[in-house]
Amino acid sequence: MRTRAAVALEAGKPLQVMEVNLEGPKKGEVLIEVKATGICHTDEFTRSGADPEGLFPCILGHEGAGIVIEVGEGVTTLKPGDHVIPLYTPECRECYSCLSGRTNLCTAIRNTQGKGLMPDGTTRFSMLDGTPIYHYMGCSTFANHTVMPEIALAKVRDDAPFDKICYIGCGVTTGIGAVINTAGVEIGSTAAVFGLGGIGLNVIQGLRMAGADIIIGVDLNDDKAEMAKKFGMTHFVNPSKVDSTVQEIVNLTKRGNDQIGGVDYSFDATGNVKVMRDALECSHRGWGVSVIIGVAPAGAEISTRPFQLVTGRVWKGTAFGGAKGRTDVPKFVDWYMDGKIEIDPMITHTLSLDEINHGFDLMHEGKSIRAVVEF
Amino acid sequence: MRTRAAVALEAGKPLQVMEVNLEGPKKGEVLIEVKATGICHTDEFTRSGADPEGLFPCILGHEGAGIVIEVGEGVTTLKPGDHVIPLYTPECRECYSCLSGRTNLCTAIRNTQGKGLMPDGTTRFSMLDGTPIYHYMGCSTFANHTVMPEIALAKVRDDAPFDKICYIGCGVTTGIGAVINTAGVEIGSTAAVFGLGGIGLNVIQGLRMAGADIIIGVDLNDDKAEMAKKFGMTHFVNPSKVDSTVQEIVNLTKRGNDQIGGVDYSFDATGNVKVMRDALECSHRGWGVSVIIGVAPAGAEISTRPFQLVTGRVWKGTAFGGAKGRTDVPKFVDWYMDGKIEIDPMITHTLSLDEINHGFDLMHEGKSIRAVVEF
Ligand SMILES: [Zn+2]
Ligand SMILES: [Zn+2]
Ligand SMILES: [Zn+2]
Ligand SMILES: [Zn+2]
Repeated sequence: MRTRAAVALEAGKPLQVMEVNLEGPKKGEVLIEVKATGICHTDEFTRSGADPEGLFPCILGHEGAGIVIEVGEGVTTLKPGDHVIPLYTPECRECYSCLSGRTNLCTAIRNTQGKGLMPDGTTRFSMLDGTPIYHYMGCSTFANHTVMPEIALAKVRDDAPFDKICYIGCGVTTGIGAVINTAGVEIGSTAAVFGLGGIGLNVIQGLRMAGADIIIGVDLNDDKAEMAKKFGMTHFVNPSKVDSTVQEIVNLTKRGNDQIGGVDYSFDATGNVKVMRDALECSHRGWGVSVIIGVAPAGAEISTRPFQLVTGRVWKGTAFGGAKGRTDVPKFVDWYMDGKIEIDPMITHTLSLDEINHGFDLMHEGKSIRAVVEF
Repeated sequence: MRTRAAVALEAGKPLQVMEVNLEGPKKGEVLIEVKATGICHTDEFTRSGADPEGLFPCILGHEGAGIVIEVGEGVTTLKPGDHVIPLYTPECRECYSCLSGRTNLCTAIRNTQGKGLMPDGTTRFSMLDGTPIYHYMGCSTFANHTVMPEIALAKVRDDAPFDKICYIGCGVTTGIGAVINTAGVEIGSTAAVFGLGGIGLNVIQGLRMAGADIIIGVDLNDDKAEMAKKFGMTHFVNPSKVDSTVQEIVNLTKRGNDQIGGVDYSFDATGNVKVMRDALECSHRGWGVSVIIGVAPAGAEISTRPFQLVTGRVWKGTAFGGAKGRTDVPKFVDWYMDGKIEIDPMITHTLSLDEINHGFDLMHEGKSIRAVVEF
């Protein structure tokens, strides 16, 4: 079949919207019609050429929602008409990692996914001249139709709006999951969130859900504070206006007869390795847990004195918020529909596929929290 | 009163054994007769001048065992004749940190202890000319008698030999505690231990107790392998004899249908920041936990790519093995007396106080696991 897609022909160039060929689903695969897709910083990381593992031509996009059109041989858990959210972190429920119960990092299709291929080592997309087009993060949601493995699709309820729940395919789950799955924040905790973009806002609403007492937002841009407050931020620190961000956070969180200060949990949603260090070091001696969410530039390294860890701080990271996609994503959709989590105020722009490059502009200009393409 | 002590008069010089003045116990303090004390790398770190916070003159030593001689006003949990192990990490059971239940890093006397003083801000030791002598880690066990706060003494059973259980005051608890308190190793785990000195051997016997399946020891010195095997090591890697220590450990631990490899738990007992990085990176994607035990040189920093954490590895550290001294140390003594843990083969040398500098020589020459001074 043919479908319309925004194709990244080469690194650093705007996407080109065009007709492409799409083969039907093979064994274990599913053809879906994409109804909506968010535009994420990770797409831009690859589009721009900053991603050393980027492959071109490719169809970017990994934050979508859609409807099953056709299932390949052997597919048993999905049928045409089902509503689904694509998962760049699949959940096969059979690999050693899935069965360990200790991680969401399924390994079943890791090798081919990283090479822009379906599990059989080929692509479903091609240019009209036959040139193969790479898949992206196993999803390629910047296309009106895409083919994905069954294990990389979460079946969700039919009454949820595509243009909102597509955001659960990445940002919402990453931010909220970091709080509840990776950090395991308890009621009454103190926390700091570095970076108040889309991920940071979702960390904040995750902290509010988890019952945190103090939620400190950190951003260089004062304008971000207003929205963050709406999601539950209780204090705001602008690093450009204080001598030491770490000391400021410590001062805001002195508790009990120790008066040591430091947050129980901190989250980096900036991707800046210096900020990651601050996030660790502002956490509480003895038990502070710092979670890295942001994606750092290629080759960048985090560092600290080992004393920070020897005195009880824990440094961890999270991918897709530690969420097991097929299990957890439908739950997040329920939470959205039940009003437990907010998404609508974060979808600041809705575009057509033809306007997709404008969505990247909005991101660069800091004007959008999330721009969504609706098909 | 007067007592005999090995005094560190200045950084980098041998200790001098001499008579010193010792004031009796003040409120909340206890006078003990030290019966035996181990010589630890941390003593040498300070003696040598490498410790930027070292204070002189001081009486080093923090790994002792002894008998209560006299208690000061208000002391209720100890009486003359009680057998005790000094704790450089006290347990007040009243500070915010103790009451948190999340850390062993009691803060009750942290400020004065770090300055070489008793909690009232003065010293009990002085030279015969009246010059104050600093306390060390709140213990100063290189003296035949010392004064310590009640909250920094663990009461232990009377039938345990001082020259063995003194080692529980530091190395044994640090190594075994890192496994059971900090890492929380489960039966069937895989683990790697970097550095097969005294701490490393205790990590290994902790792993054996915890039921680990694979216990990989890593050391540049092949001669260390023999003793480590006796404590439970199952595989040995000499970094000087393989291309990549990380890859070697990964290859030794490929499991299940993923065949990714990497240990569930790793421990650095070297204090070398490059080794700490290897320890992190040889741990399993998705859930590997790496624990820093070793003390790094002043100013040294650990580093890695944040990707290591984002893909599920956890970096932590431990001080005194995460043990709450007054609660856990008596339990470790029971375990030793019950034959659950071994100490005797690690006490390789017993010296008199006059021979204490020879104990430091043995450490430098790599000839001792632990040299113990008996009074
Ligand atoms: Zn994303
Ligand atoms: Zn799997
Ligand atoms: Zn020690
Ligand atoms: Zn305390």
